[in-house]
Amino acid sequence: MLAYVDGRYVPLDQPAIGVEDRGYQFADGVYEVCALERGRVLDEAAHFVRLQRSCRELRLRLPVSVRGLGIIVREVLRRNRLEEGKIYIQLTRGCAPRDHGARAPRAVLVVTLRPTDGRARAQSLRKGIAVITLPDNRWARCDIKSIALLPNVLARQDALRQRAEEAWFVGAEGLILEGAASTAWIVDAGGIVRTHPLSAKLLPGITRARLLAYLRAERIAVEERGFTPKEALAAREAFQTTSTASVIPVVRLNGQAIRDGKVGALSRALQNFDRQSNQRNLQASNF
Amino acid sequence: MLAYVDGRYVPLDQPAIGVEDRGYQFADGVYEVCALERGRVLDEAAHFVRLQRSCRELRLRLPVSVRGLGIIVREVLRRNRLEEGKIYIQLTRGCAPRDHGARAPRAVLVVTLRPTDGRARAQSLRKGIAVITLPDNRWARCDIKSIALLPNVLARQDALRQRAEEAWFVGAEGLILEGAASTAWIVDAGGIVRTHPLSAKLLPGITRARLLAYLRAERIAVEERGFTPKEALAAREAFQTTSTASVIPVVRLNGQAIRDGKVGALSRALQNFDRQSNQRNLQASNF
Repeated sequence: MLAYVDGRYVPLDQPAIGVEDRGYQFADGVYEVCALERGRVLDEAAHFVRLQRSCRELRLRLPVSVRGLGIIVREVLRRNRLEEGKIYIQLTRGCAPRDHGARAPRAVLVVTLRPTDGRARAQSLRKGIAVITLPDNRWARCDIKSIALLPNVLARQDALRQRAEEAWFVGAEGLILEGAASTAWIVDAGGIVRTHPLSAKLLPGITRARLLAYLRAERIAVEERGFTPKEALAAREAFQTTSTASVIPVVRLNGQAIRDGKVGALSRALQNFDRQSNQRNLQASNF
Repeated sequence: MLAYVDGRYVPLDQPAIGVEDRGYQFADGVYEVCALERGRVLDEAAHFVRLQRSCRELRLRLPVSVRGLGIIVREVLRRNRLEEGKIYIQLTRGCAPRDHGARAPRAVLVVTLRPTDGRARAQSLRKGIAVITLPDNRWARCDIKSIALLPNVLARQDALRQRAEEAWFVGAEGLILEGAASTAWIVDAGGIVRTHPLSAKLLPGITRARLLAYLRAERIAVEERGFTPKEALAAREAFQTTSTASVIPVVRLNGQAIRDGKVGALSRALQNFDRQSNQRNLQASNF
């Protein structure tokens, strides 16, 4: 695989980053992950808008225009001849002698591409996954998509050790905020689809926004309202969304089955919607 | 300058890190910074012990023994022929295709050396610095010396924009926890030296521990007890400690002078103690 690194296309496994890159020493950077399906980038415009917002919050300057970034992504796709996968875009403040407040001459942009593990993804979509909950121990600005992901990594490790695939963070008020790398949803006992409202404590998910719009357009009862782990266990269905894996049913929480431990009907319907919506978006994208 | 990177000695400004190093993509790593004075490493054993603790907390495995790490540090010193500076040691989980829960084949160790800006340091020691306070927005495990330092970077940037040199974090209880890269101290209105007690919210500073031991041995009134910004402004003296810059007087807080805005007598005395203590330690170290 070839990666774009700060103006050059280099083998992905070749050392390409400076030791004093502030992303490496300070987590001083932001990122996006987009799905590549049939050679097209899903929700590219929305990801770029969010990346620009993250940059503003960190006072980081993208070294290329959004149009230029699109061209780089296209070039990474072209050079790697891949049709399905994950596009990873990272921007760090660049290299400078290590000091918290140092200015770096310019930000460093990286774009990589990796194939998706199609079999694992298909199985998650079909059978659903197990999730654990953990107290949220992250910083106060999880609305910024920063690379300071250590708590998310440790949470995911905890999940894996408990034979689960994801960890959902529970905030100080006892409500599930989001997953380590996903948006958390339930269909509650009253049949209302629920996810935590946006705040500084969680990421404004792009699939989350698309799904909310769809549910409202279809007049399916939906509320941006948090829920507790107890409510999740009593829910009719639970699922999570990510940009690269669509709607993943959640069938177990903290070792207990949700409802009968089977994938719910609405989760299945939303997977179909998401697939169709992506196809429409892809047909409409003419970059 | 030459750096040690994962088994090799390479120019510090040469790309040496993989794009998929988990330190770069997830802040999945830990670090230490030690002062180099007259060719000797200050408090090396204490830094190595803390690094081992950080590794345990992240379930990271040092790829060399502590003795081996000491040899690498010595080799970095030898190749760079520097007598005064900062030694930076970083360990990340290593390279793997990007996934929160991925296992990497082995951790990546980096050791770098940079000269200290002696003039800036001398001026801080002599004249003191200005500090601002900010609400603590970091994660819940600041006792781990991890590279997930983005909030610390943003805090330092805020300080610099307000013509201050450091930011002190104020916790939920209204008490100053520590600085973005320092331990915070005051000599309160009653003459008692105070610093926040250790907890998951702050780093167990190595100079902090040395200073506490000294104050107790000298029967100077000292308490591990937090203080508010208001108490700091009413204090006789304030100062901060770091491993690389000793005891730095703090003479302004949030734009207001502390006492008369001059360096206090105890701060000065503690600088002298620290200098002498370091000299003794250096003479005693026979690595």
